[in-house]
Amino acid sequence: MEAVAPPPANPALEAPAGLPDSDFIPVGHPLFSRIRLATPADVPHIHKMIHQLAIFERLADHCIATESSLSSTLFNDLPFQSFTVFLLEVSSNPLPKISSPNFTPIERIIQLDLPVIDPEAELFKNGTNDVVVAGYIIFFRTYPTFLAKPGLYVQDLFVRECYRRKGMGKMLLSAVAAQAVKMGCGRVQWLVLDWNVNAIKFYEEMGANILTGCRICRLNGEALEAYRDAI
Amino acid sequence: MEAVAPPPANPALEAPAGLPDSDFIPVGHPLFSRIRLATPADVPHIHKMIHQLAIFERLADHCIATESSLSSTLFNDLPFQSFTVFLLEVSSNPLPKISSPNFTPIERIIQLDLPVIDPEAELFKNGTNDVVVAGYIIFFRTYPTFLAKPGLYVQDLFVRECYRRKGMGKMLLSAVAAQAVKMGCGRVQWLVLDWNVNAIKFYEEMGANILTGCRICRLNGEALEAYRDAI
Repeated sequence: MEAVAPPPANPALEAPAGLPDSDFIPVGHPLFSRIRLATPADVPHIHKMIHQLAIFERLADHCIATESSLSSTLFNDLPFQSFTVFLLEVSSNPLPKISSPNFTPIERIIQLDLPVIDPEAELFKNGTNDVVVAGYIIFFRTYPTFLAKPGLYVQDLFVRECYRRKGMGKMLLSAVAAQAVKMGCGRVQWLVLDWNVNAIKFYEEMGANILTGCRICRLNGEALEAYRDAI
Repeated sequence: MEAVAPPPANPALEAPAGLPDSDFIPVGHPLFSRIRLATPADVPHIHKMIHQLAIFERLADHCIATESSLSSTLFNDLPFQSFTVFLLEVSSNPLPKISSPNFTPIERIIQLDLPVIDPEAELFKNGTNDVVVAGYIIFFRTYPTFLAKPGLYVQDLFVRECYRRKGMGKMLLSAVAAQAVKMGCGRVQWLVLDWNVNAIKFYEEMGANILTGCRICRLNGEALEAYRDAI
């Protein structure tokens, strides 16, 4: 404990309750971050981020998600049984405590040299304090037959632009990987667009193999609808 | 009804109960085929076919599925909620009736010029009559966020070698596509190995788009295990 600095006068720089003092070094600009399970109340923020992701991926024309369609499809099963969304929240102040029966939130303090200027802070504000939603990851269970045990598939990983390059994408993907290990899964899998060299490099640094030799087949729209009476 | 041939004397050539007479043309060698939900009792056959698929895909080294691991992971949820296996059974005689509360079996009579010689008939025999297991398809629910509604992902589609090129792969994939429409899904997706030009052609004929520009990222083995304590 000798190396720990004396308690700071500024409450924004105090270690949040529950974290040992030694984890907290009050230098620079701390960004308090947390990953928690999303709830139906988060749909407006998730909806905006899905559309931001579609624009980033140059696939905006393919994105028809609405708040209403997300609300009616996303939370019909227990977390981890089917589709699951982890939400990333950040604040320049310690985050208010929350309880979650199905998943213990993951909290980290990210030390930044400069504070983040978030031009969309008002749009992504969560609650009455200065907590904002900064990203999300959505995943679901798969079944890789060759392993004969479940896997997880990451559908989307997204961090809002002003929060990128601060370790938050790694934090979200690590949370899913750790959850996969906890659930006894044998694999975590996702897609990357081949022009997104930054993402490919990031995933390789995370330990992922980038496979070659596979192509994705997709049946949708009218081609899928044509099978309505096939059986 | 005028075009229908008179009822045949051979009971093997009679139209099975429940099928209208006009669907049945008793010429050549009929192969009675049926798609039904797999049950835990089918695991030995599913296990053998998964290994045959792995050999076909030149991925036998990656296949560690055992009967035991399949049994303990594959049937823990209701059909269609999570992982689901459709099994394809065939017989040169009308199939004995079965009932299934969750899925009405799909029956078709395939007219062949020559009978199928099945060198593994004994290995894939199902029950006490001449019904054999000829293939399977396994799929699970996904969540394409841009559509904001569930999809289905086909993990494996497999027809045993002697039953190929008779429309059975199409029958299995059509069954999943029809199920997807029934469940309100917006997409059916799967992978194909890029050297498998026959499969690519077959999928295109089924109406699928073969996507380019995506790569698959996979975290498994020790690289995944390293995230055990990441959260």
